[in-house]
Amino acid sequence: MTRSRNLGGLLEQFRGTSIQARNLGRCLEVWENALTDPKRPTIFLGLAGPLIAAGLRKVLRDLIDWGLVDVVVSTGAVLYQDLYQTIGGQHWMGTPTADDVQLRELYLDRIYDTYVDELKFEETDRAIGKVTEEFPPRPASSREYLGFLGKRFSSAESILATAARRGVPVFSPALIDSSIGIGLTLHYQATRRRKERFLLDAVRDNYELVQILAASPRTAVVYVGGGTPKNWINDGIVMANYAFGREGEGHYYALQLTTDVPHWGGLSGSTLDEAQSWGKIAKTATRSMAHVEASIGLPLLAGALWDRRKVWKGRPRLRFTWDGDQVSVRRVRS
Amino acid sequence: MTRSRNLGGLLEQFRGTSIQARNLGRCLEVWENALTDPKRPTIFLGLAGPLIAAGLRKVLRDLIDWGLVDVVVSTGAVLYQDLYQTIGGQHWMGTPTADDVQLRELYLDRIYDTYVDELKFEETDRAIGKVTEEFPPRPASSREYLGFLGKRFSSAESILATAARRGVPVFSPALIDSSIGIGLTLHYQATRRRKERFLLDAVRDNYELVQILAASPRTAVVYVGGGTPKNWINDGIVMANYAFGREGEGHYYALQLTTDVPHWGGLSGSTLDEAQSWGKIAKTATRSMAHVEASIGLPLLAGALWDRRKVWKGRPRLRFTWDGDQVSVRRVRS
Amino acid sequence: MTRSRNLGGLLEQFRGTSIQARNLGRCLEVWENALTDPKRPTIFLGLAGPLIAAGLRKVLRDLIDWGLVDVVVSTGAVLYQDLYQTIGGQHWMGTPTADDVQLRELYLDRIYDTYVDELKFEETDRAIGKVTEEFPPRPASSREYLGFLGKRFSSAESILATAARRGVPVFSPALIDSSIGIGLTLHYQATRRRKERFLLDAVRDNYELVQILAASPRTAVVYVGGGTPKNWINDGIVMANYAFGREGEGHYYALQLTTDVPHWGGLSGSTLDEAQSWGKIAKTATRSMAHVEASIGLPLLAGALWDRRKVWKGRPRLRFTWDGDQVSVRRVRS
Amino acid sequence: MTRSRNLGGLLEQFRGTSIQARNLGRCLEVWENALTDPKRPTIFLGLAGPLIAAGLRKVLRDLIDWGLVDVVVSTGAVLYQDLYQTIGGQHWMGTPTADDVQLRELYLDRIYDTYVDELKFEETDRAIGKVTEEFPPRPASSREYLGFLGKRFSSAESILATAARRGVPVFSPALIDSSIGIGLTLHYQATRRRKERFLLDAVRDNYELVQILAASPRTAVVYVGGGTPKNWINDGIVMANYAFGREGEGHYYALQLTTDVPHWGGLSGSTLDEAQSWGKIAKTATRSMAHVEASIGLPLLAGALWDRRKVWKGRPRLRFTWDGDQVSVRRVRS
Repeated sequence: MTRSRNLGGLLEQFRGTSIQARNLGRCLEVWENALTDPKRPTIFLGLAGPLIAAGLRKVLRDLIDWGLVDVVVSTGAVLYQDLYQTIGGQHWMGTPTADDVQLRELYLDRIYDTYVDELKFEETDRAIGKVTEEFPPRPASSREYLGFLGKRFSSAESILATAARRGVPVFSPALIDSSIGIGLTLHYQATRRRKERFLLDAVRDNYELVQILAASPRTAVVYVGGGTPKNWINDGIVMANYAFGREGEGHYYALQLTTDVPHWGGLSGSTLDEAQSWGKIAKTATRSMAHVEASIGLPLLAGALWDRRKVWKGRPRLRFTWDGDQVSVRRVRS
Repeated sequence: MTRSRNLGGLLEQFRGTSIQARNLGRCLEVWENALTDPKRPTIFLGLAGPLIAAGLRKVLRDLIDWGLVDVVVSTGAVLYQDLYQTIGGQHWMGTPTADDVQLRELYLDRIYDTYVDELKFEETDRAIGKVTEEFPPRPASSREYLGFLGKRFSSAESILATAARRGVPVFSPALIDSSIGIGLTLHYQATRRRKERFLLDAVRDNYELVQILAASPRTAVVYVGGGTPKNWINDGIVMANYAFGREGEGHYYALQLTTDVPHWGGLSGSTLDEAQSWGKIAKTATRSMAHVEASIGLPLLAGALWDRRKVWKGRPRLRFTWDGDQVSVRRVRS
Repeated sequence: MTRSRNLGGLLEQFRGTSIQARNLGRCLEVWENALTDPKRPTIFLGLAGPLIAAGLRKVLRDLIDWGLVDVVVSTGAVLYQDLYQTIGGQHWMGTPTADDVQLRELYLDRIYDTYVDELKFEETDRAIGKVTEEFPPRPASSREYLGFLGKRFSSAESILATAARRGVPVFSPALIDSSIGIGLTLHYQATRRRKERFLLDAVRDNYELVQILAASPRTAVVYVGGGTPKNWINDGIVMANYAFGREGEGHYYALQLTTDVPHWGGLSGSTLDEAQSWGKIAKTATRSMAHVEASIGLPLLAGALWDRRKVWKGRPRLRFTWDGDQVSVRRVRS
Repeated sequence: MTRSRNLGGLLEQFRGTSIQARNLGRCLEVWENALTDPKRPTIFLGLAGPLIAAGLRKVLRDLIDWGLVDVVVSTGAVLYQDLYQTIGGQHWMGTPTADDVQLRELYLDRIYDTYVDELKFEETDRAIGKVTEEFPPRPASSREYLGFLGKRFSSAESILATAARRGVPVFSPALIDSSIGIGLTLHYQATRRRKERFLLDAVRDNYELVQILAASPRTAVVYVGGGTPKNWINDGIVMANYAFGREGEGHYYALQLTTDVPHWGGLSGSTLDEAQSWGKIAKTATRSMAHVEASIGLPLLAGALWDRRKVWKGRPRLRFTWDGDQVSVRRVRS
């Protein structure tokens, strides 16, 4: 391995080694294949894990801003901590060997080796709750609600705000399992007797997702971690086939950074091969799963993509036009 | 270690050894402490992972039937595969080294080393869809909907049916991320224009959960795996404090069987100690986290609990009385 | 899963489930196949990991005493802590969150969640050193030296003593990497100038191993953990083929309890399948690798073997007759 | 995280994030502290794992050539595969899902996702065996024997050859557990009756190690993986204290790249904190353990060290003067 000057070169070299370095190099290759495929596959980004605490907020924002992903599916925790930082909340460097009882006294909450401010969390909850009062009092999907939050909490570095600005839809199928869900519970408590009120119509998320899949000649998936985002995006294929009699192949490209393992049998660590038996990943897909924690793996991938941007610069973006729960999708110049 | 004749004795011996055997022995101890605590803590069971494929359906059903848990929070996948078996679907012994492309041809879906029948899955989806048409056309929580499914899909061995029969509420905060969600999507597609239709009002789940917590003088949590169930049940404490100005302690008892690890920073592998900094687990809680896969760990725990049933026989159960989204809770004789 | 009364029944049921429970059930099956195979395969037991701290001393001693293994290959640490307990040293229940600097002050050494007595360790080192002075002043293998220690440190519960009493050879190819090695270093320092002195002739271990393999019509391997024991016993096949022009198949039966994983590429977690490409495991071998920590997995296996002892009772043992570095092997009645 | 142009900048940024990226950044910091400490600590490099297959041969060679390590302790496998490549053997890119039985037919051995040439392996064994005949017929340590091999198998890219050229001692305490051990077994078979023959005097390795430790005012350890190298280098401190009444502190600096975890209780995954209770790591040590596979982590570390070489350029090297089993150590200009 020669001494490489940038991440693009490093990951190219990784491609020719073995074990997880090779898998990471292949992840770059798969992503670039998806970006240059003439069928212009719709690229779904799945996010799970302590990604904001890990320091990945800017990297994720950049991936969206550069147009390297078309749709985002995230746990509520990632989006919440994005908003927390937007209103000024900080993640402090701590240690996993802290005295947690003592941290409680100090109103510090620990996420492995990082601390967040309990009081600032409460402030974030209130800010979200307040803004939610301005949302139309009717059922809506998480996609619509999160787009609304992305516009209200405007910030150049925010994942949600950047997605809203770029028209990239953000879904969170398990949104109620997060601090955003906590705020929504307070909202529910305050509005439950009203004739008309904002309802998180969870199933609508599925319906919107299958339309996007049906409108996509081909799809690609980028999974940071596993969890609900991975499972839901994979399941989308099955839903789309049912709902639209779609005879579509599964996701054509699939890459994942994970710390989970297959032999526990669970979904997060399940191989992209296993997904083929379900038809969720196409039989001819190019795919790669790298066992590396996201705080290390994702900056390497993103940095390499940026170094090699000649490869994908000018790729058309997608414009999503929403009419209630109906969506149409078309390509536009970058 | 003397040769022990039953699982109760085995886990007692484990308690006096080290590493994960000790942790598993302590899990038994924590669970028994929760079962015998005079404050009669409400015990929440969180379920995540390929538990039906792992062969744990009967064990889980038994835990509910014996009254060892009061509330169940599960991923949709576990509940779906429970229904799949209720209508006659089978899990076949397969191998993780199968040719997944070939399995696809055979309409077999692979879950690690187990196969399920794709066609039977579709039959299950349709059965669920059909039954859903009989559900009242209005917003409802997953708890209410799953209770309904538990009554309709009646079977002595079913987790959902046993829970329904015993009045144990079952929540699934991320229900749409499952094959049940697929069925609900078809239902949505068919009913979306109607004035009145069944809506999965996700936030209502949170509201119902916080009432149960507010009504509980003390709580205990048993996590099989981590994921959304663990995060949601932990978050419930925060929600209840907000919603009801509850000054409650966090979960007093906490035990978990997991295959995840803390040093990836994520929630599933986060230590029960870390949760103390968030106030989600009480500072004086007895707790234990055993790193052992559920297919091995849960039968050992359940078998030991059964062998030592003198300890908890006669423990009063909880009766939940639901009125719309309001619930009252009281103890009744076993 | 019906409620099983003993471990034999439990593991039989595990055999019909999935994921690691199935693998553990299959480990039992593989071991029993090896015990009942009419070619009477030589069974090698590989030991690595904090097994004494884990509380497995008696289980391991029993496996040797019952004749379920014919040859033992262990790290020095396991054997050293066996001797430590023989001279009265104890393993105390501690915690992994201890203040290690404080433990140092208290002369307590920590092995994850167990403490051992630093001063008693020094006493053990001296005892070993003293006894070593009585060993013949010439080159010898670890097998011969450990057999000597097993006779000198006599105790009914000791692994080494039981092996010595039963004539089961114990090898430790990396003996110098242990506290026994520390004692041997002091011995070296004291004797290095002598014309004749005891030398640990490491390569002699290999030579003795290949003779045992050459004398075995068939072999079986039981790996608790991986490490040097697993690698060395596997390599033995290659050595035997070279040294004796042996056209033997690889190990016919192979079972392993491990906490390591294949995708890091290393030997400990490497699949028993991978070993087939090296010819170290026979192409038709029955094999099983269970991902479960030994403190949980080994008592289950051993307990099940005992419950089902009708299967293997009466199996002839092997008598090893040593003449210098030459060995002959024959079967004797149990 | 700004877009950084080189690995030095990347790891500096990692230092300010969380989870494993932070740990990796801290590993760089610890290494640089060791390199710039005026007491000029002796730096020990421990090597375990499929490092040559992982593509790390050149990186390891560079670390030695640049003077970033003073002593190497390795498993035999790493050194053997280094020699295999020196005589022209190749590692081919394969796949972990290969048919291992078929590979056997093709004389290909698999190391996870890499293949090596069985026939070339045999050629390497013979080459080693032949050269060994020229080694003096007397007891010797692995350090002396490996230095001899490093001179005979001369190659600019070889780890062993570069170490020999630079006078960096290479130890392999478990050398017999490797293909080099296989060659030594053949040698043993051929020479066992001779009055004088080359003996691998394993304990001599320990004796040489403790002298180096006793001659070091301070020490630092860099562990790639864990295993025997980590355990032996840590134990060295205890041996040195015994053997030389050394009241030395433990290793002052410690950094490790690992894929193992602490909660299995074993040595490889044991925390550098735990080693403090044994006195093997100084109470005031700076230390960091990054959970990342070496194929990804080591090139990042090495690349960053090179980018930031101003920090350590000009650091004096150590010259080891061997007289039989006695060694003296002094600093020389780089």
